[in-house]
Amino acid sequence: MRVVGVDPGLTRCGLAAVEGGPGQRARLLGVTVVRTAPEASLAQRLCSLEAQIEEFLTRYAPDEMAVEAVFSQQNARTVIGTAQASGVATLVGGRRRLPVSTHTPTEVKAGVTGNGRADKRQVARMVTSILGLSAPPTPVDATDALALALAHLWQAPVLARRRLAGVSR
Amino acid sequence: MRVVGVDPGLTRCGLAAVEGGPGQRARLLGVTVVRTAPEASLAQRLCSLEAQIEEFLTRYAPDEMAVEAVFSQQNARTVIGTAQASGVATLVGGRRRLPVSTHTPTEVKAGVTGNGRADKRQVARMVTSILGLSAPPTPVDATDALALALAHLWQAPVLARRRLAGVSR
Repeated sequence: MRVVGVDPGLTRCGLAAVEGGPGQRARLLGVTVVRTAPEASLAQRLCSLEAQIEEFLTRYAPDEMAVEAVFSQQNARTVIGTAQASGVATLVGGRRRLPVSTHTPTEVKAGVTGNGRADKRQVARMVTSILGLSAPPTPVDATDALALALAHLWQAPVLARRRLAGVSR
Repeated sequence: MRVVGVDPGLTRCGLAAVEGGPGQRARLLGVTVVRTAPEASLAQRLCSLEAQIEEFLTRYAPDEMAVEAVFSQQNARTVIGTAQASGVATLVGGRRRLPVSTHTPTEVKAGVTGNGRADKRQVARMVTSILGLSAPPTPVDATDALALALAHLWQAPVLARRRLAGVSR
């Protein structure tokens, strides 16, 4: 199964694609941080973000998508833009009929390190080790999207059974 | 000039279309509240919202679009969904190359009533009077979208001059 993880943001949006399955080592397909110009209008920025996410999904053809949850308690200056970016990412996935799941940062950290309060360095080290990389993934701030995709990959069988049983998250 | 106003929301999203110009009485073209099913997934809801906004824009072919601003201090339970809905509305307008402006509720109230702290009843009464309607517009909660479209209609010449001068809002 292929999973794309999205760490949403208007100025920087992390995108990661991984592949794996029961008994298989997870494999890195691609990871990037797409950007939109802060001086552009919001409409232009959201259109640019849509096009860049579309391109990433076309390149890696995932089976499922995971988007990091946005909370109203986050940085007040950026939370609205982050929510708008997550809305566009979720919309793009939905239009492709991909199952789109949301995971909190705590779930993601717990998923890849076993500790919901792990720091960025611990997460990067585990992601590097899980994927068998020779060095931490770059750009470094795409690590969140990668950790999200991995956490989702492992949860996906559980989520699929819940969907079949008609239990939504 | 034709303006579409959007009062964004995931469960209920107000859409209003008005027409007017210098020396002309503003005219109501259409107003509605589109909804998405709370039991559907976020991806399905955003896709449904996108389709319904597209349909409204196709029907009324506006020259400009106005979207009510979302603030992180708003109702914590719904603000993320409202921001995601506003992101989708802004994206849809941007894809059509419409200028998309944002107005705060205070700007809108001041624009149509002269008082930035006017209550819902005062706004509805002014909107009814400005548009020469025999009764307040229905559905009643589309009044915000209508007030927004009217406020934008009157500000549009100023905003256009600012855009020409390279001054963004």
